[in-house]
Amino acid sequence: MTAVAEPDMTPAAEAAPAAVPEHEHEQKPRDILIICYSGELEKTWATMILATTGAAMGAKVRIFLTFWGLQVFVKDEKRITGDGAMQKMMSFMQRPGISHRKLSKMNFLGMGPWMMRKLAKQYNVASPKELLEIAQAMGVELMPCQMTMDMFGLKKEDMIDGLGEPVGAATVISLLQDGDAPLFI
Amino acid sequence: MTAVAEPDMTPAAEAAPAAVPEHEHEQKPRDILIICYSGELEKTWATMILATTGAAMGAKVRIFLTFWGLQVFVKDEKRITGDGAMQKMMSFMQRPGISHRKLSKMNFLGMGPWMMRKLAKQYNVASPKELLEIAQAMGVELMPCQMTMDMFGLKKEDMIDGLGEPVGAATVISLLQDGDAPLFI
Amino acid sequence: MTAVAEPDMTPAAEAAPAAVPEHEHEQKPRDILIICYSGELEKTWATMILATTGAAMGAKVRIFLTFWGLQVFVKDEKRITGDGAMQKMMSFMQRPGISHRKLSKMNFLGMGPWMMRKLAKQYNVASPKELLEIAQAMGVELMPCQMTMDMFGLKKEDMIDGLGEPVGAATVISLLQDGDAPLFI
Repeated sequence: MTAVAEPDMTPAAEAAPAAVPEHEHEQKPRDILIICYSGELEKTWATMILATTGAAMGAKVRIFLTFWGLQVFVKDEKRITGDGAMQKMMSFMQRPGISHRKLSKMNFLGMGPWMMRKLAKQYNVASPKELLEIAQAMGVELMPCQMTMDMFGLKKEDMIDGLGEPVGAATVISLLQDGDAPLFI
Repeated sequence: MTAVAEPDMTPAAEAAPAAVPEHEHEQKPRDILIICYSGELEKTWATMILATTGAAMGAKVRIFLTFWGLQVFVKDEKRITGDGAMQKMMSFMQRPGISHRKLSKMNFLGMGPWMMRKLAKQYNVASPKELLEIAQAMGVELMPCQMTMDMFGLKKEDMIDGLGEPVGAATVISLLQDGDAPLFI
Repeated sequence: MTAVAEPDMTPAAEAAPAAVPEHEHEQKPRDILIICYSGELEKTWATMILATTGAAMGAKVRIFLTFWGLQVFVKDEKRITGDGAMQKMMSFMQRPGISHRKLSKMNFLGMGPWMMRKLAKQYNVASPKELLEIAQAMGVELMPCQMTMDMFGLKKEDMIDGLGEPVGAATVISLLQDGDAPLFI
């Protein structure tokens, strides 16, 4: 939790109670479930900002890592992952790791992401990697998708430390049925 | 429901109760509402896996088919749909049908989707088309968007069998207000 | 509210109570929270149709404008926004304003969006800009994201009239915890 106290962290700055109108829908505040499906830079950023802000506000936040979204949580230094030729080819075509995300548009040979990261720094917005560290320190639960692990041939040692055990779609459905607020990002 | 008992079906394999923490938000489990907006291969897959898993777990699952997402549910053998020149052109540029979905990235002249389907087969993940059949057999409700039908010039006979009557955004809002867990995919 | 009474407005036509099965999840109908993240034409359309339909049905609808989604709400006549060279460059590469949205695919030098708008007109679907006016008249709340304002160098005078004060991710989390039905579009 101490990371949140650092002065340059966006989520902490925003964690002050916002002027939101009163609701009386629920007795208990809902948990947040983010389905992290896309591996794009902006969406990874959005996921991490919401997750850390939620955790800082005391919400239980879980992130289900699936499809391209799982590749974000491969160790940055891994270059080629998987067993067969196809899996290796796919990791080569789409470089995994949170520090190698691309924008969904305006990539222009890397100029877009570079400008975005530069502007973020200038306005004291933490990088996705920094936000991930904060999220993990604050107890955000990271749940890798078993099926995606299998299809991409990803192994436990390919992934960053601190991920939970791989789970399936049934876990997602269970949480939805229980009333978690879902975001498919 | 018998389809679920087949050994190679991913959702069934995952339908075993997962180790999810207890919540007490709700008395009744929530229904699931998927807004199937995108026609991409991976997102169609995600939609179908969540829908069949949900149905196998006894959840009520509804899918609202809109924009590019509706084109997925045109019969596979239809090539050109619509009345006017513009509608025909649009169906030509973006081939409809669940067996003709493309990835959102890494298409590389069809190599990406081909590899993805191949890997899925290797790891016993059912194809989107197989999952759709299971979903329909298990009572997942497919609700086409009237406005999209009109704009693309799609007629009842263009669509796969078993779709519900076309509905509008008001149906979606009603379900959201009633507490369905929404996923915009 | 009078705008809704006009004969050619899609949302009003659909606002008649739909034949939706009864739920008893909740005592009170839920508010709707749209996270408007993407600036694409079809997604802007989907956002505006859901927001106006919701408002016409008496639902409280809030839209959080963030990342590319915030650029949609820059005044149409603004061409270059921001202070530094990078911010100016980004607004140049990605033209802001609700009348300048592009499709996520099938752009073909503008032919896709042109056909889409033309078909919409033919089928009496209001344009995103018209829907935005209705939404604002009906009390849909538009909440710009402070962080995005900062990163893109957008100022109050760059934005359309009638936006609320900029807020942060904490406002989104609060609403989610309170039970709003979230759509990440």
